[in-house]
Amino acid sequence: MPREPRWDAVIGSAAALFSENGFAATSVREVAERARITKAGLYYHIREKEDLLFRICDRSIAAVLEGGYDVLEKVAEPRARLAGIVRMHVEYFVRHPHNLRVLTREMGALSPEPRAQVARLEHEYLDLIRGVIRDGQAAGVFAPVDATVAAFTVLTVMNNLFDWYDPKGRIKPDVLVGQIEAILFDGIAATANGGRTKGKGRKTA
Amino acid sequence: MPREPRWDAVIGSAAALFSENGFAATSVREVAERARITKAGLYYHIREKEDLLFRICDRSIAAVLEGGYDVLEKVAEPRARLAGIVRMHVEYFVRHPHNLRVLTREMGALSPEPRAQVARLEHEYLDLIRGVIRDGQAAGVFAPVDATVAAFTVLTVMNNLFDWYDPKGRIKPDVLVGQIEAILFDGIAATANGGRTKGKGRKTA
Repeated sequence: MPREPRWDAVIGSAAALFSENGFAATSVREVAERARITKAGLYYHIREKEDLLFRICDRSIAAVLEGGYDVLEKVAEPRARLAGIVRMHVEYFVRHPHNLRVLTREMGALSPEPRAQVARLEHEYLDLIRGVIRDGQAAGVFAPVDATVAAFTVLTVMNNLFDWYDPKGRIKPDVLVGQIEAILFDGIAATANGGRTKGKGRKTA
Repeated sequence: MPREPRWDAVIGSAAALFSENGFAATSVREVAERARITKAGLYYHIREKEDLLFRICDRSIAAVLEGGYDVLEKVAEPRARLAGIVRMHVEYFVRHPHNLRVLTREMGALSPEPRAQVARLEHEYLDLIRGVIRDGQAAGVFAPVDATVAAFTVLTVMNNLFDWYDPKGRIKPDVLVGQIEAILFDGIAATANGGRTKGKGRKTA
């Protein structure tokens, strides 16, 4: 795969257009125009429009997966690992908001084989997060929640930030990371002077 | 708007097809066939395909919003209120998985005016949840997190269940509700024999 400035511009333009208007509604001509390249020049890099979608999805999930492995290498303690993954993922989103939106929203438009390739990386990333949660449970620093539900919950919160969060808005990215960490790690319920409401057995109607 | 068994079948068929194949890729003819109605009979109810999408989105968000107000009426304590809303929303998803997928994924395909109508209800639902969180913070039962981030986090987790959760799988809906409640309310971090790791100041690298 070409890794050069022009190719990066093409991928960036495609991600922005697919994110804003959807994959189906975007033409190769529009991508070429936005990337300031001829349509013929674009077809030097790709066979068809779907190749762009695959490259965006593949590159995005590969980047956060690699970021996840980086965290595992640098940090040993499970809670610090999960916090590091959350920070890395949110920072990737802030730098490449279109990429994660396209990955989350448009991956289903891929043909079976490329979709399976992206899904394999997504599954590997889920396994990585779930592994950290299980390690933390074994070490007693994480609660005995279902590790799969917990891992998907963490992933869902990070992957759908594009739906509501604007990095240029009131809440700065650094503050967002701290807030998400506080909510996912310690929950919305208050510590009643350090003592959680947890286990008090309040039930809903 | 017609509220009759046939119309319900039409909406149900449209939601299933939009959810499985996407709004853009689904034809009115396919909706009619699935609902076992003639295309002419379907056009008695709608002017165009987008009407179906609007009705699905409008009905779905209106249902959970009404469910939210029901909870407020029946339950007074903020934590029990939020738990009741989470349960109601997850149960709606389990009964109508296609509706929430279409609302979350395809709402952007609506024209500006109907989209704004749906967005108003979504905003009202967000306000309802954020209000419960603020009430709980004022009462000291919720942690001093940013109420907007917390409300969007709760919403995101519920609205994207379709992405990974299968009600027919290993985790039964009732168990899922309890798990989501545990994660959102008390967090993934363990209580060290009742004492949270919270505030221990562990930082990520």
